[in-house]
Amino acid sequence: MSEANASATRITPGNALRPEDIALLDTRPGDAVGQYALGLGDDALILAQRLGWWISRAPELEEDVALANIALDQIGHARSFLTYAGRAWDRTEDDLAYFRREPEFRSVHLVEQPNGDFARTIARQLVVSLYQWELYSRLVDSTDATIAAIAAKAVKEVDYHRDHSIQWVLRLALGTDESRRRMIAGLKLTWPYVDELFADHPLIDEVDGAGVRPSTLRAPFDAAIQAVLDEADLERPAVPGAVGGGRSGRHSEHLGYILAEMQVLAREHPGASW
Amino acid sequence: MSEANASATRITPGNALRPEDIALLDTRPGDAVGQYALGLGDDALILAQRLGWWISRAPELEEDVALANIALDQIGHARSFLTYAGRAWDRTEDDLAYFRREPEFRSVHLVEQPNGDFARTIARQLVVSLYQWELYSRLVDSTDATIAAIAAKAVKEVDYHRDHSIQWVLRLALGTDESRRRMIAGLKLTWPYVDELFADHPLIDEVDGAGVRPSTLRAPFDAAIQAVLDEADLERPAVPGAVGGGRSGRHSEHLGYILAEMQVLAREHPGASW
Repeated sequence: MSEANASATRITPGNALRPEDIALLDTRPGDAVGQYALGLGDDALILAQRLGWWISRAPELEEDVALANIALDQIGHARSFLTYAGRAWDRTEDDLAYFRREPEFRSVHLVEQPNGDFARTIARQLVVSLYQWELYSRLVDSTDATIAAIAAKAVKEVDYHRDHSIQWVLRLALGTDESRRRMIAGLKLTWPYVDELFADHPLIDEVDGAGVRPSTLRAPFDAAIQAVLDEADLERPAVPGAVGGGRSGRHSEHLGYILAEMQVLAREHPGASW
Repeated sequence: MSEANASATRITPGNALRPEDIALLDTRPGDAVGQYALGLGDDALILAQRLGWWISRAPELEEDVALANIALDQIGHARSFLTYAGRAWDRTEDDLAYFRREPEFRSVHLVEQPNGDFARTIARQLVVSLYQWELYSRLVDSTDATIAAIAAKAVKEVDYHRDHSIQWVLRLALGTDESRRRMIAGLKLTWPYVDELFADHPLIDEVDGAGVRPSTLRAPFDAAIQAVLDEADLERPAVPGAVGGGRSGRHSEHLGYILAEMQVLAREHPGASW
């Protein structure tokens, strides 16, 4: 069996791909698919940074573990998508994570939003996990076999994230007056960043069937989140959408701080033995 | 089969015990064994808080994941030991983690030491993982079946932590001049906290065969760490030991800050629905 065939065999959907495997693939994405994978990876990477903050700060030891595990899943997805994207330009995952400047990041504004209190983090998790589930469950049919394989692994993990956030939304919204008040406030702060998730960026026309057109995910997302809001006796916040632009490299002031923290050690000693 | 027998069956060494299982055991430790388990749990808990800080700050994405996984393992061990300790006084793991004051914590000074740079964290990991491995590999023969079962699970995970820290010590010590300089400095800052690990606290006389006499671990620990130092071409630091006292509740100024961060959310809403 040739090397190419061996690789092709490995990247069937459902076959979990480690970043190390992806780095060795013969397959290279073109520039557009690379950019598309970069957006997926950056969303997961920045969300993981935000969630990692909760380790040692969650209200229960069990929740410390849960949020850390979700952060680890997201770092895993980020590593896979960034490794594959990097194949387009001969760059490694670490090179992309630690040596890009802020305008080169392609993540949406939602994931860079502050953690706030626990309820605000859960509101962000509700939106992001429902969105990622709708997205990844369609990306398993991507015409790009590597993206399909990464999505096939990711969607199983995001299914748990979705369940985790829904259970917390119900627990907070239907708990005490104080927890309900916080849940409502968290949802309101999060809602302006929903629209950007479903905006069709020009890039989508260039990747053909390798990606999923964001606007097609809006209806299933709306139905899914409405079901949660109904069960939690919450209203859909009536707030205008924020300006967005993350996929084009226009970010809020928050991303700069996240990157400063994330990149300082790697940049301090570029090319160091670690 | 009676309930008591059913539980007794579950706590054979090697049978992984979840904190949820331990909370349901019929077995209760006496006060001394509870105090002993508290020390084991506090070491793991405080170390996990320190390691969790590295999520999003490690020099490689892969290392982000590795340190987060080690932190998660330690939280897992802490939850098990604290749950079991709490059975002695009808307190939950969360009650013990979030509602004890600083002098009530029984952790050694080593685990509350600052992360410093990456090399200092690795030096702390080298000492703590070699120590925990010697300890847990003997605690699997504890006369207390629950402690034996927790140790049997923990020792397998700590075996990986040990390997992880040794590989990094070699990589840093035998890497660039700068990484070697940092490794030497990190080890020197860590060394004063080694002696406390092997000091025989009076409690050990009260727990009979349920615990392991710390002083008996010194020789195997010394041999193990000397082998690493030799391979890394490092000298054993010639620095005096610090005063210690963590097992009696006398801590350095660092623990207060760690606890403030860890306990703030749980204390803000005691008895809240989360």
